[in-house]
Amino acid sequence: MRVAIVAAGQTRFGEHPDLGVKELFASALAEMGPGVDWGGVEVAYIGSLSCGQGMQLGNFAPALLDYAALPPVPAVHVENACASGGFALLQAVQAVASGQVRCALAAGVEKMRDLSGERGRYWLGISGDTEYERLAGLTFAGVFGLMADRLLYEGRIRRSDLAAVAVKNHRHGALNPKAHLRREISLEQVLAAPPVASPLGALDCCPTSDGAAAVIVACEEMAWQLTDRPVWVDGWGAASDTLALHSRGSITGLAAVRRAAAAAYAMAGVGPSGVDVAEVHDCFTVAELIALDELGFCPLAEAGFRLEQGAFALGAGGLVVNPSGGLKAKGHPIGATGVAQAVELFAQLQGESGARQVPGAATALAFNMGGSGASATVHIFRKEGG
Amino acid sequence: MRVAIVAAGQTRFGEHPDLGVKELFASALAEMGPGVDWGGVEVAYIGSLSCGQGMQLGNFAPALLDYAALPPVPAVHVENACASGGFALLQAVQAVASGQVRCALAAGVEKMRDLSGERGRYWLGISGDTEYERLAGLTFAGVFGLMADRLLYEGRIRRSDLAAVAVKNHRHGALNPKAHLRREISLEQVLAAPPVASPLGALDCCPTSDGAAAVIVACEEMAWQLTDRPVWVDGWGAASDTLALHSRGSITGLAAVRRAAAAAYAMAGVGPSGVDVAEVHDCFTVAELIALDELGFCPLAEAGFRLEQGAFALGAGGLVVNPSGGLKAKGHPIGATGVAQAVELFAQLQGESGARQVPGAATALAFNMGGSGASATVHIFRKEGG
Repeated sequence: MRVAIVAAGQTRFGEHPDLGVKELFASALAEMGPGVDWGGVEVAYIGSLSCGQGMQLGNFAPALLDYAALPPVPAVHVENACASGGFALLQAVQAVASGQVRCALAAGVEKMRDLSGERGRYWLGISGDTEYERLAGLTFAGVFGLMADRLLYEGRIRRSDLAAVAVKNHRHGALNPKAHLRREISLEQVLAAPPVASPLGALDCCPTSDGAAAVIVACEEMAWQLTDRPVWVDGWGAASDTLALHSRGSITGLAAVRRAAAAAYAMAGVGPSGVDVAEVHDCFTVAELIALDELGFCPLAEAGFRLEQGAFALGAGGLVVNPSGGLKAKGHPIGATGVAQAVELFAQLQGESGARQVPGAATALAFNMGGSGASATVHIFRKEGG
Repeated sequence: MRVAIVAAGQTRFGEHPDLGVKELFASALAEMGPGVDWGGVEVAYIGSLSCGQGMQLGNFAPALLDYAALPPVPAVHVENACASGGFALLQAVQAVASGQVRCALAAGVEKMRDLSGERGRYWLGISGDTEYERLAGLTFAGVFGLMADRLLYEGRIRRSDLAAVAVKNHRHGALNPKAHLRREISLEQVLAAPPVASPLGALDCCPTSDGAAAVIVACEEMAWQLTDRPVWVDGWGAASDTLALHSRGSITGLAAVRRAAAAAYAMAGVGPSGVDVAEVHDCFTVAELIALDELGFCPLAEAGFRLEQGAFALGAGGLVVNPSGGLKAKGHPIGATGVAQAVELFAQLQGESGARQVPGAATALAFNMGGSGASATVHIFRKEGG
């Protein structure tokens, strides 16, 4: 059964000292605009890392529905660290694709600013391997720093390649009214930023953001009742890997991403060269570089050079990666991130992205990951008639 | 597509100071016995409340797969408080029913003894409404105490009706080698036990348990390859309600349970009178009394009298409720509970329950809830040929 996204909304990502998770969730729904048939929603999947416990809200999925005055349908809290949103979306898409429900809500919400400083590091750290990584003192930036360091040591990337990712994504984020960091940065600024986990500096890391995002997924028949511009979910895939880097055959690749993408491409009947716009999980700059390779967009050996020449950027022609600004500039409210990728691509495929519009975008890909690639989801979207 | 449980296993419930969540998970898998085709499992859903954060294990679903040397298939952590296991099972069943996968693993794991005392109350407390219940000092026993108190005040139950639930379930639990509390108790002992949240005393409350449980769910074709005695999942349903008691029209009913059960009965084409054996969420004795009514087994006004006459017990003839001992005696390792209900009913329908066997059991029902009924799942199982 064909599945479509028919409505999408997200809050501004950033600091929201005045809003709790319930209010953030309701705000994301409100951003979908009027005319949403809330009575038609038959199940809800809500992604969050910290809500279950950090925010002291167990079983918070039904509580969010109650707060937003939605019907008391089954509501499931999904947690796969930074891929919580991607997996919430996957559950919703699969529920509709199966014919078991006609309409599902996928949402993600996180309040990270309340967990900043020592606690924020703790929350993110637990997404890596607790026994062998976090408790040994390895931060999450440290995990990705090790991956970047190894790539540099092997001569497969240059330090400036990492910086080029940040420069591109900040240029895009500056155009996004919902982005956390709305300013352009230069290559020199990235290289001169204070180190966080060498070789990664402060401007190689995504910010700590609050936010929520939500999409409505519907079957084909219902989709046409709700919108004249459905965005089809034509392929999806997911995979797992070890949490600990040291358990993997290689620390410079992301095997789960490759497997999830292969499944999604096969299902959608499209390859990397058929993708016009992609939202790619760039929690740290090195993640986007590796993902460009694992998703089949560009061999790692060429990625840095192509980025330096302006590739993957708005206005360059060809595939645009992270027009929203990505996690790097748009922000990274953990559970919301995977859903927000779909929100961006929904607007892109509807031609409603304003200054960030990728001209003629017809096919889009979203890649979300948890931990340092221990979980991955890939979704492929297509414009109606695209 | 027809769905079957083809293998099931659980650890002993109780205290496991020597085992972490990974080891508990692997032990539950080992209890399934040899001959399980792990390579055939295409997706895993793992229910847990505290693992995500309390145990400092973010994204722990792929970590469990890795530890147990399972293939790196998509692994999703599901959290709906005490219904985490029921929702993990529901996801697995729906994934297979949809035809998207042929075989799925549903598991639940919790290490509650490490969270005992003040921290244990905290973990359970967050399954209620945080702002209006927990932070106001209402414990989880307190929530159910209020429900019981109101029922007593309205003259709809007697104090001894509550006690009769505990007596029955302890009698069953004494026969279960996997149960946490393996001793019979008398009505007098329950009534004389120290108060926890009046009118509920210590023997009206389930214990704080460690444990894990797992089942393998497969499509019809694969089921017949794996076993000659598949247990069919013929119906399922789920629903939500408000977290806070005060938001509900009534604090003496469980509306989500009624709605989940109605969906499951309709799907299975069976009614309450067709059920031979049921595992019913009895975190506190009052929960089973109310559930007997909401599940359509017996009007609340009669439940106590019938229990006193020996109904719903092994050997009494007719429907047996909680032959495993229920949460009350078998134990309640939160995320494992909903899956363990299926483990018990799988054995019952295969005729492998030994001293606890319900003679001729052909149709079974499992009811699992999160919070004080904010989430509920109901599954209906049928014996092959039953």
